[in-house]
Amino acid sequence: MKGFAMLGIGKTGWIEKPRPACGPLDAVIRPIAVSPCTSDVHTVWEGALGERENMILGHEACGIVDEVGSLVRDFKPGDRVIVSAITPDWGDINAQRGYPMHSTGMLAGWKFSNFKDGVFAEYFHVNEADANLALLPDDMDPCTGVMICDMMPTGFHAAELADIQYGDDAVVIGIGPVGLMAVAGCALRGAARIICVGTRPKCRKAASIYGATDFVSYKEGDIADRILDMTSGKGVDKVCIAGGTADTFAQAVRMLKPGGIIGSVNYLGSGDCVKIPRVEWGCGMSHKTIRCGLMPGGRLRSEKLAALVRAGRVDPGLMITHRYHGFEHMEEALLAMRDKAPELIKPVVCID
Amino acid sequence: MKGFAMLGIGKTGWIEKPRPACGPLDAVIRPIAVSPCTSDVHTVWEGALGERENMILGHEACGIVDEVGSLVRDFKPGDRVIVSAITPDWGDINAQRGYPMHSTGMLAGWKFSNFKDGVFAEYFHVNEADANLALLPDDMDPCTGVMICDMMPTGFHAAELADIQYGDDAVVIGIGPVGLMAVAGCALRGAARIICVGTRPKCRKAASIYGATDFVSYKEGDIADRILDMTSGKGVDKVCIAGGTADTFAQAVRMLKPGGIIGSVNYLGSGDCVKIPRVEWGCGMSHKTIRCGLMPGGRLRSEKLAALVRAGRVDPGLMITHRYHGFEHMEEALLAMRDKAPELIKPVVCID
Amino acid sequence: MKGFAMLGIGKTGWIEKPRPACGPLDAVIRPIAVSPCTSDVHTVWEGALGERENMILGHEACGIVDEVGSLVRDFKPGDRVIVSAITPDWGDINAQRGYPMHSTGMLAGWKFSNFKDGVFAEYFHVNEADANLALLPDDMDPCTGVMICDMMPTGFHAAELADIQYGDDAVVIGIGPVGLMAVAGCALRGAARIICVGTRPKCRKAASIYGATDFVSYKEGDIADRILDMTSGKGVDKVCIAGGTADTFAQAVRMLKPGGIIGSVNYLGSGDCVKIPRVEWGCGMSHKTIRCGLMPGGRLRSEKLAALVRAGRVDPGLMITHRYHGFEHMEEALLAMRDKAPELIKPVVCID
Amino acid sequence: MKGFAMLGIGKTGWIEKPRPACGPLDAVIRPIAVSPCTSDVHTVWEGALGERENMILGHEACGIVDEVGSLVRDFKPGDRVIVSAITPDWGDINAQRGYPMHSTGMLAGWKFSNFKDGVFAEYFHVNEADANLALLPDDMDPCTGVMICDMMPTGFHAAELADIQYGDDAVVIGIGPVGLMAVAGCALRGAARIICVGTRPKCRKAASIYGATDFVSYKEGDIADRILDMTSGKGVDKVCIAGGTADTFAQAVRMLKPGGIIGSVNYLGSGDCVKIPRVEWGCGMSHKTIRCGLMPGGRLRSEKLAALVRAGRVDPGLMITHRYHGFEHMEEALLAMRDKAPELIKPVVCID
Repeated sequence: MKGFAMLGIGKTGWIEKPRPACGPLDAVIRPIAVSPCTSDVHTVWEGALGERENMILGHEACGIVDEVGSLVRDFKPGDRVIVSAITPDWGDINAQRGYPMHSTGMLAGWKFSNFKDGVFAEYFHVNEADANLALLPDDMDPCTGVMICDMMPTGFHAAELADIQYGDDAVVIGIGPVGLMAVAGCALRGAARIICVGTRPKCRKAASIYGATDFVSYKEGDIADRILDMTSGKGVDKVCIAGGTADTFAQAVRMLKPGGIIGSVNYLGSGDCVKIPRVEWGCGMSHKTIRCGLMPGGRLRSEKLAALVRAGRVDPGLMITHRYHGFEHMEEALLAMRDKAPELIKPVVCID
Repeated sequence: MKGFAMLGIGKTGWIEKPRPACGPLDAVIRPIAVSPCTSDVHTVWEGALGERENMILGHEACGIVDEVGSLVRDFKPGDRVIVSAITPDWGDINAQRGYPMHSTGMLAGWKFSNFKDGVFAEYFHVNEADANLALLPDDMDPCTGVMICDMMPTGFHAAELADIQYGDDAVVIGIGPVGLMAVAGCALRGAARIICVGTRPKCRKAASIYGATDFVSYKEGDIADRILDMTSGKGVDKVCIAGGTADTFAQAVRMLKPGGIIGSVNYLGSGDCVKIPRVEWGCGMSHKTIRCGLMPGGRLRSEKLAALVRAGRVDPGLMITHRYHGFEHMEEALLAMRDKAPELIKPVVCID
Repeated sequence: MKGFAMLGIGKTGWIEKPRPACGPLDAVIRPIAVSPCTSDVHTVWEGALGERENMILGHEACGIVDEVGSLVRDFKPGDRVIVSAITPDWGDINAQRGYPMHSTGMLAGWKFSNFKDGVFAEYFHVNEADANLALLPDDMDPCTGVMICDMMPTGFHAAELADIQYGDDAVVIGIGPVGLMAVAGCALRGAARIICVGTRPKCRKAASIYGATDFVSYKEGDIADRILDMTSGKGVDKVCIAGGTADTFAQAVRMLKPGGIIGSVNYLGSGDCVKIPRVEWGCGMSHKTIRCGLMPGGRLRSEKLAALVRAGRVDPGLMITHRYHGFEHMEEALLAMRDKAPELIKPVVCID
Repeated sequence: MKGFAMLGIGKTGWIEKPRPACGPLDAVIRPIAVSPCTSDVHTVWEGALGERENMILGHEACGIVDEVGSLVRDFKPGDRVIVSAITPDWGDINAQRGYPMHSTGMLAGWKFSNFKDGVFAEYFHVNEADANLALLPDDMDPCTGVMICDMMPTGFHAAELADIQYGDDAVVIGIGPVGLMAVAGCALRGAARIICVGTRPKCRKAASIYGATDFVSYKEGDIADRILDMTSGKGVDKVCIAGGTADTFAQAVRMLKPGGIIGSVNYLGSGDCVKIPRVEWGCGMSHKTIRCGLMPGGRLRSEKLAALVRAGRVDPGLMITHRYHGFEHMEEALLAMRDKAPELIKPVVCID
């Protein structure tokens, strides 16, 4: 079969690989809609995962079940499914601890285009199919469904980590597609004011639809100073980090009230360390909590988020600014993601 | 001063009382908008609190600060304020335990028209003013503000007790004003499907605006059976109880998934006991949790909910179906609440 | 192979069955120590699970791995293991929701001597071996290990459900082996005073060792009245229910402070319903929470509890009052459990 | 009255001040046992709080109530009391948010020897007496009671922040008196293995009594490497930080499992920032949570911890290595704390 792969750091191309084998708990899926992620960009052009050769890219896909293993009970060939970007081993000790995304090791619930071939292929493999697939609702566009693979669960996880409560003042740093879903996640957990840090007009407009109330730009001075000004010096209850760098945390700590929480889902690709400013952290006694995490994966998560979309609470499909038709456009979509034109939020490739 | 009072069980009327005295931590408030509550109806006509003589009624009010005690720092005469229906003693041991509404004893954070005179008077007294008042935002209609005294914090508390999470299927039993706010509270904590139990068209219409997706009527057979049917026999994740009787809990337990939670804020005025059906409760091993509680009161709560309203997340003012103008209409408003005409959700009396 | 079985309600005996087959994720275990549980008694003589024919009994066992399936990675024949009484399907949607004990249906994580043959046999089957077995530490007596299958995780779960916090006053109702482990569980989560309801001297003595500070007897009047007296009318923070009947809950509600929690792990075998007294429940506004649940099962739980035993925090082996040697004594041990002689807490059968 | 004060950075001495005035909610206390804290040492000799002139030192005291304000209900002159080192304003908005220690501002619940005169005086002032005093149990030595003012609530808070659960492997960094109480706090929340980082033999011996199972020394190489070795490379579930410097956090992050939690109660007196190593933090996706905080204060906390001591769960009095008799020994005790002789854990001054 054909797949669009990372050939090495900085190099991509089409390759031929055998169709993946299907173990007793597994499924093999034929994608019908896929989307490139900023992570794919990091993987290829920044070597974020280190050297990888001929690894098929992509971890966001809806598809049609092509084959299931002998122990799979709930899915059958022909079913249209949402495939979680994170596909845990659910019996693993870390999953039992409540951290399925770290099953078999830190971050190891993330398999596609990391430890195994991804979804930019004619077929791809899913482990523990009953636990990691969810039916695509009949009335849901597969392109919207693709937003449930990674963008929506990751963005919403920021709001979960930050433990948003009714009436909280929240900041969302970064308003790319994950940040936009963090905005929606904050609004859907009851945040009052949602101050977004980001500048692109297209993204700001989407953020307003998802619930943002205020905007701050990096370009207008220190964002912590700005947000302290906007809150009469009190700071905010919660900060969701969905963009920026390792240095963003110092600003986030400064803009928090005592007892506030940072929830970060941002991949930190460079820098030796994240720095927490001692004085603003109350000399280590401020109760400003710093939380971070890879999104939870699996079937339940996908089903729950799909239910939210179907109930009309949020439409992640609004983020899709570019639609390509045909398998052969995967490279184009990935490059669009890398080059981030002003009008781009999220591209999707629809396959037949 | 004049006040509208319960003279005895079943009897109401205007009485004269001295203007309340103001201790060092206290405030005396002149109401500008008040609303009668179903609790006032229970108190007067059902004797829910037992015998009370010449007790001024009412616990929902916005007002103007008329006097403050010597230790009050944050409020001054002339300030327009939202007065929480529950006004805890914040230093009390139960408040330190996290239950301010039970400060000095079970339910004893509820003082107005219970242990002391209520707000249907020319002036009323507020203990611990700095902790129990909140500024009415300049741009907020005092009638909308009155919804923040009790209806909104109580309804939202149902959703908090039920611990609504992203994508949950929830049921809200009862869609009077508290139930409607429970619907809004569920939607604002991320519920997907919200099935409401209630029949009045006016309330159903409001529920839809607040986020209801489905409706069930008591008149069409057992509500637990209906909801199990609607969920393919799986039941729902959470049930908020904002109406019904002690018998409602048995149905709520039946319609829950294992691990589900009931959050009840409904005052139970009669019946010896609430009955939990043994078999549907998994012979005591189902992890179906039963929670109940009086709303949290105090300044923070009011500020947070006011922030939600100002951010446009919810408009509790939509519930106000009847507006009276002038202090003298308090009796009329109370009787309207008692008689519940088909078109009534919530009456408010605006004073000058 | 031979197994000791329930032949029908009220009838037990030895039967012959084929050795169980081992699927790819499974293990077949040869027991080395087993213990009958009060549940076995309920199952056989009270028909608690309904009619069952020729079902091998028992769900508490340590054993030696005899065979593993092709996908099992962490265990191999010859390993000595603790087998959790509850063996969830970890990928199931209810497990993903945080309720593995209810995987595939309410209480359905409980398989042994319920939906399939139990452990009182020459061999027994374990599903998802990697997720449901734990290594028996080399220095741990298998008879002590058997206490980790059900008694300790169930009793400790009562303390978890009750959410014991530093300095809480707690009541434990019932001081059979599960109640004793609830006492230990309360002490190990920081309860201060632990008042036990139970009368048998042998059990009281063990309770004292595990951390009980006070005792109350059913025979000396209403236990709620007694406990309110002992706490100057204030009541207690938490109640663990590990004995009694459906009627016990009414007493538990009465003895709680507002904001208190009941954590019940008691199997309720009879009665139509559990009754919550309306007035003492604060007319439905007391924040007295009622929680119940089947113990969590699986490998992590067993490993964690074994670690506690190895660290010397608790010795569940102290509960073993009767040790039988040889497979053939299973019936005798079960009858001992049924007849509960004054000196009996927990019998164990050691199989060479 | 006389008081032992910080005259300026690096200078201490006896001064004369007027006896403090008593507001309507307040109490004036005459100390009967006091203890210097490492914080006092930081305050005087490191200028941790900045310049302070003629500020009476000390925040750990038991005493006798000498006077109460007109609104104080629960205490009267002659009562023997434990005085929490942190005395919040309980109605403050931050207290309502759940952070009484930050009432009126970050860390501002800490008043003694910070914003106002401390307890090393003939008399000292306590705000909100009903909420911040607790009766010293009749059978409790006031010197033991002094351990409940700060050492025990602070050390236990580390275990709370780290959210210790049954069977967790925990590390406690620093085994001075706060660290020792963190050890006890971990054991009393159900930790299994407790690995302590510290070297002083006197402290190690005490740590063993409080529940430590293993010891690691800074002097034997990198502590994170050592602890990873001791746990077969897996790391631990939780880390309590009660010593070290800003650099300690990097080691703590490295020794944690994914999903692990750091709970720090250590005052960080120097360094620009705390550094979180990016790679070991899972590139910001590890779910390794970093929490810190000043101890909760107030009456409930003191009562709960006193109840634990009275129930025999822990004896903080074991930490008292030096007892001085007479008010005039305060300086000597403070210098002992500063100079930390090998045999010193905690000095107490008993006053008549």
